[in-house]
Amino acid sequence: MPELRRDPIVGRWVIIATERARRTNVVSKAFAAPPGGLCPFCPGHEDKTPPEVFASGRPPGVGRNNSGWKVRVVPNRYPALMIEGDLERQGEGIYDRMNGIGAHEIIIETPDHGRDLADLSDAEVTEVLHAFKARILDLRNDQRFRYVLLFKNHGAEAGASMEHPHSQLIALPVTPRLVQEEIEGARRHYEHRERCIFCDIVGQERKDRSRLVFENDDFVAFAPWAARAAFETWIVPRRHESNFELEPNARLAQCAQALRDTLRRLGLALGDPAYNFIVHSNPLRDAPSPSYHWHIEVMPALTQVAGFEWGSGFHINTVPPETAAEFLRKVA
Amino acid sequence: MPELRRDPIVGRWVIIATERARRTNVVSKAFAAPPGGLCPFCPGHEDKTPPEVFASGRPPGVGRNNSGWKVRVVPNRYPALMIEGDLERQGEGIYDRMNGIGAHEIIIETPDHGRDLADLSDAEVTEVLHAFKARILDLRNDQRFRYVLLFKNHGAEAGASMEHPHSQLIALPVTPRLVQEEIEGARRHYEHRERCIFCDIVGQERKDRSRLVFENDDFVAFAPWAARAAFETWIVPRRHESNFELEPNARLAQCAQALRDTLRRLGLALGDPAYNFIVHSNPLRDAPSPSYHWHIEVMPALTQVAGFEWGSGFHINTVPPETAAEFLRKVA
Repeated sequence: MPELRRDPIVGRWVIIATERARRTNVVSKAFAAPPGGLCPFCPGHEDKTPPEVFASGRPPGVGRNNSGWKVRVVPNRYPALMIEGDLERQGEGIYDRMNGIGAHEIIIETPDHGRDLADLSDAEVTEVLHAFKARILDLRNDQRFRYVLLFKNHGAEAGASMEHPHSQLIALPVTPRLVQEEIEGARRHYEHRERCIFCDIVGQERKDRSRLVFENDDFVAFAPWAARAAFETWIVPRRHESNFELEPNARLAQCAQALRDTLRRLGLALGDPAYNFIVHSNPLRDAPSPSYHWHIEVMPALTQVAGFEWGSGFHINTVPPETAAEFLRKVA
Repeated sequence: MPELRRDPIVGRWVIIATERARRTNVVSKAFAAPPGGLCPFCPGHEDKTPPEVFASGRPPGVGRNNSGWKVRVVPNRYPALMIEGDLERQGEGIYDRMNGIGAHEIIIETPDHGRDLADLSDAEVTEVLHAFKARILDLRNDQRFRYVLLFKNHGAEAGASMEHPHSQLIALPVTPRLVQEEIEGARRHYEHRERCIFCDIVGQERKDRSRLVFENDDFVAFAPWAARAAFETWIVPRRHESNFELEPNARLAQCAQALRDTLRRLGLALGDPAYNFIVHSNPLRDAPSPSYHWHIEVMPALTQVAGFEWGSGFHINTVPPETAAEFLRKVA
């Protein structure tokens, strides 16, 4: 049984995935590819994954776990957390642990093995975002979960082991530390000014324009002021909204356009780089917030993140966000 | 001129190394190797580095920037920060920046190109720690600096670009975020219990022994309870001390033994893995603290850190610290 352990000094929670460790080897990739060359995410191989929890696009009359889908969501065959059981908290001297209850799902973004998210149409990316939303709305009914961490690892350098285009979600009984820090930072700003700091940032970026990459009616994409890595890009709704899953579908279509455009620009500018994106949203059990503002952080994995950077929280970025944004504005 | 920029939401400072970006290319390694095959860190090539700021071990009568040294410290030829100038703080709307004042130095650990820190004798590693201490004691006289970040990237997967054994230091006008969070977490524990949390941890680890890797009279090495990565190992002084540079030389010899032993075990267990270590110490301008406790965090770079991990602060570790520690205890 995997467990969640809390660092007693800074309060960071970590998944210790013991079962996985026993099954594989002491040194293993977190997301191992299945044996054999067959892609379990391709149409026709639906029986090679655990039974689906969501699918869209099938023609009427075609049953679950058959081909014909456009987006398909399945439990991860090698989950970092287990879906079944009650949440149990335990102390061990000064330490805290929880049993590793959670969900770990794969969002298969397209039936087409050879296309990436950036190659899909706006309508197809919109379908993927609808799947994200549907899964969050379903998982929030489970009272054990406090957060759904939605992310994509694209390319081996970004941690992906499966080639077929997919994103992942991990439903957690805790909120990830960086999201929690953003929530607290945004709350402090709100207490002083009664304004959302993300709304302020969007306002300043749209006025300044030097870090702007793309905008449409509802979203902006820009290189953040204190970008941790070269070409880090954030996609932020222009209208205040704390929760991704509360966005109406019409606005998700605008979000899909901004996301696809950003990924396409990064691909053109940098030659199909490996990248990660992470959806930062308000925790499931919190009321919609006037101070927090959901957004997507996209980070190309251009250079190795030196261990000292994630071990110290101190980053060196050799490409100023203004330079990166100018480059990205020009490529398309 | 490089600059330091503050993320307005979470307060994280980032170095934007603009000069480096202009000189190299938009996409560059942070620490580029010099052109040609010659190693500028080897004896006889002292003129290929900027003039040294520290050296030890030369026979009497041999002048600076000549061979004969055992440990040599030189400014980085491609510094992330600039040593000259006054600290200037500026606002830009809701954003904050500082000019990029700081020091960036290379600690050349041995004249021998082909040996790593783990291959040196205890006495030689002690010399390296003495150099760390001497540089911190010197740099703390500079009132512009608040923190000296001491770290080592070993192996390409850990971000190293030069093969010759070396560590690095970056003197900063700010404290790295993770150190700041540790200081605050430790202070909260102290306020409740009037005890240092690191002392409590050392006590529990020495009693429990399941995560213990090594101990001598003055230091323990153990796998931390909530290890972020497989085989993460901390080296912590048994006696309370907040500042690395305040350790007497006799205790640094014990620290050298613990560090060398840990690195040697990791090398044997994992086949000379790439790794990073980071010295976490009390900030230069703070009084020695009853609640904070300096230590070294060693992290083997066994698996790619997926971007979602450093972008969310949420980690998945497939090797329980107890398993890793048992493995490391047995190899030597």
